[in-house]
Amino acid sequence: MALSIRGYAAQSATTPLAPHQFERRDPRADDVVIDILYCGVCHSDIHQARNEWGGSLYPMVPGHEIIGRVASVGAQVDRFKPGDLVGVGCMVDSCQHCAACTQGLEQYCKEMPTFTYNSTDRRDGLMTYGGYSERIVVNDKFVLRVPDGVDPKSAAPLLCAGITTWSPLRHWKVGKGHKVAVVGLGGLGHMGLKFAKALGADVTLFTRSPGKEGEARRLGADHVVLSTDPDQMAAVAGHFDFILDTVPHQHDLNPYLATLKLDGVHVLVGLVEPVNPPVHSGGLIFGRRSLAGSLIGGIAETQEMLDFCAKHGIGADVEMIGIQDINEAYGRMLNSDVRYRFVIDIASLKTAA
Amino acid sequence: MALSIRGYAAQSATTPLAPHQFERRDPRADDVVIDILYCGVCHSDIHQARNEWGGSLYPMVPGHEIIGRVASVGAQVDRFKPGDLVGVGCMVDSCQHCAACTQGLEQYCKEMPTFTYNSTDRRDGLMTYGGYSERIVVNDKFVLRVPDGVDPKSAAPLLCAGITTWSPLRHWKVGKGHKVAVVGLGGLGHMGLKFAKALGADVTLFTRSPGKEGEARRLGADHVVLSTDPDQMAAVAGHFDFILDTVPHQHDLNPYLATLKLDGVHVLVGLVEPVNPPVHSGGLIFGRRSLAGSLIGGIAETQEMLDFCAKHGIGADVEMIGIQDINEAYGRMLNSDVRYRFVIDIASLKTAA
Repeated sequence: MALSIRGYAAQSATTPLAPHQFERRDPRADDVVIDILYCGVCHSDIHQARNEWGGSLYPMVPGHEIIGRVASVGAQVDRFKPGDLVGVGCMVDSCQHCAACTQGLEQYCKEMPTFTYNSTDRRDGLMTYGGYSERIVVNDKFVLRVPDGVDPKSAAPLLCAGITTWSPLRHWKVGKGHKVAVVGLGGLGHMGLKFAKALGADVTLFTRSPGKEGEARRLGADHVVLSTDPDQMAAVAGHFDFILDTVPHQHDLNPYLATLKLDGVHVLVGLVEPVNPPVHSGGLIFGRRSLAGSLIGGIAETQEMLDFCAKHGIGADVEMIGIQDINEAYGRMLNSDVRYRFVIDIASLKTAA
Repeated sequence: MALSIRGYAAQSATTPLAPHQFERRDPRADDVVIDILYCGVCHSDIHQARNEWGGSLYPMVPGHEIIGRVASVGAQVDRFKPGDLVGVGCMVDSCQHCAACTQGLEQYCKEMPTFTYNSTDRRDGLMTYGGYSERIVVNDKFVLRVPDGVDPKSAAPLLCAGITTWSPLRHWKVGKGHKVAVVGLGGLGHMGLKFAKALGADVTLFTRSPGKEGEARRLGADHVVLSTDPDQMAAVAGHFDFILDTVPHQHDLNPYLATLKLDGVHVLVGLVEPVNPPVHSGGLIFGRRSLAGSLIGGIAETQEMLDFCAKHGIGADVEMIGIQDINEAYGRMLNSDVRYRFVIDIASLKTAA
């Protein structure tokens, strides 16, 4: 018996999101059926709804920052029971046997992970639909436990914005004694500040906008550097061990690379499609610096992050919206007018659809 | 009493190199005076003699791949004695107290190392002059011991081409079980093949020129990939742990980055000044790949490399020239017409100057 589900979908690259009814597969033995409570709104939802990366599949129900309660579980599922508070991030399946998957790095699955929406299920060939909806059916290996002490609304953005910043900080072993800079103060950047601070680093925010000092400090920054001011940039030349670059649009990396110390690493997490201006070889060679990229994070490290958040009282700063506000929210996100992540209260579907 | 020394110098950016007589400082208590036997000819000699990087100081006596015998030592020097076979590379001094120097990474000295030529001595303010000459006076900490079993002619290029490829291979812990690619088959590239093979890696040469298969295999390559052939490039997508890029001119890095596996690293060692075409962020993010740079190597790791070469019977493939052939040699190097490094027999100065 297929499940009938209400949600919001884009019907094409140029139409606003609107109410949409769709069917989901009968739960398999290893599936978890989740009643969605909250869904964060990610910049990549806009890119994909509007086909800005190409290859979008319609109708598209976006949303990959999902918090909900388990409604039912398949016969083989023993990790979850009805009523459990759980999360689903950017992936709902992967090959589970390649070198990346067996290391717990499903996001780098050699056969590509099955993404939560705008993807094709690798078992039944059906399209996947995301969290702008009342329910989702997910393989239990891709379901996260939301620990006690985490606010479920603030937890939603952890499933993408959170893990995307957590994973590189952990992979490059950022901690006490490190000088870390975060570039950009949006959904990802504000999580980067919180995590870097909680991990024990000395934290700097690079920003192009004056007046963010108070906010930055509240979120965990020890210092703020205005990247448009050559004197402030010169003062931090050769200073940082690690730069977490969350900027989602084209930007010149060379001034930031110059602020890395010996063996420093500049990691891109905020942009996938744009091509930045050329990097000067000398900026890498003098100082043995690295420019790297990092994509979301694996399932095991996502659970690690959620447990860390529970222990340290960390969540995203969110602005709650009803699902009927989603198109307006997209407009505001494109103007950077959100502190720092919109989260849809899925209860609003009852009145909206 | 200043030492009077014969050599070859550029008198300006546009004049050919010609005989030159200059004076060197009286040896200090921690100096070693070296009678030069051989000096390798590095691509950077041309760049600096012709002021292609800017800031060249004239008259300039190039040469930083120096092999010679100790003529005399200062009162405080106990590591060397007259007659010892020794080497001098790209540096003759550094601050010796910054974080880089105290790690044995003098090439990244925060106050900049004193380079062997085209530099200003940090103690007496005099210009430094390099190995295209019969003698050099060097602080003993920057003198390398050439172990028994190393051919002195083949050892000269180890002091720059050798250490520039050795240092990143060691820093990124290349060894057994790794798939390594070397880009470019010149002075650096041919050393990269030899070292990567001797360290136990499975070694591939990327080349734009067909017909190098035999040479590449003789030097240590297990495989050769023609980088201009899209099919050959596609066949090695996601294949390599490490790419050692020795190409000294502008080139598109994106096709090479696509051949790295998860966590793979592409290291630039061959070029300092050129700016390559933009790197696609996605090529770094999907696969958590890194683009890095590496500059020559420290003194301790240069000694380690020389000892490794003695143990494994490794030296550069060299073509010996007289110093009077240097301008012609520069022309041939610019046409990639050398297998694989010119080395000046400094005995030729007796007849040339």
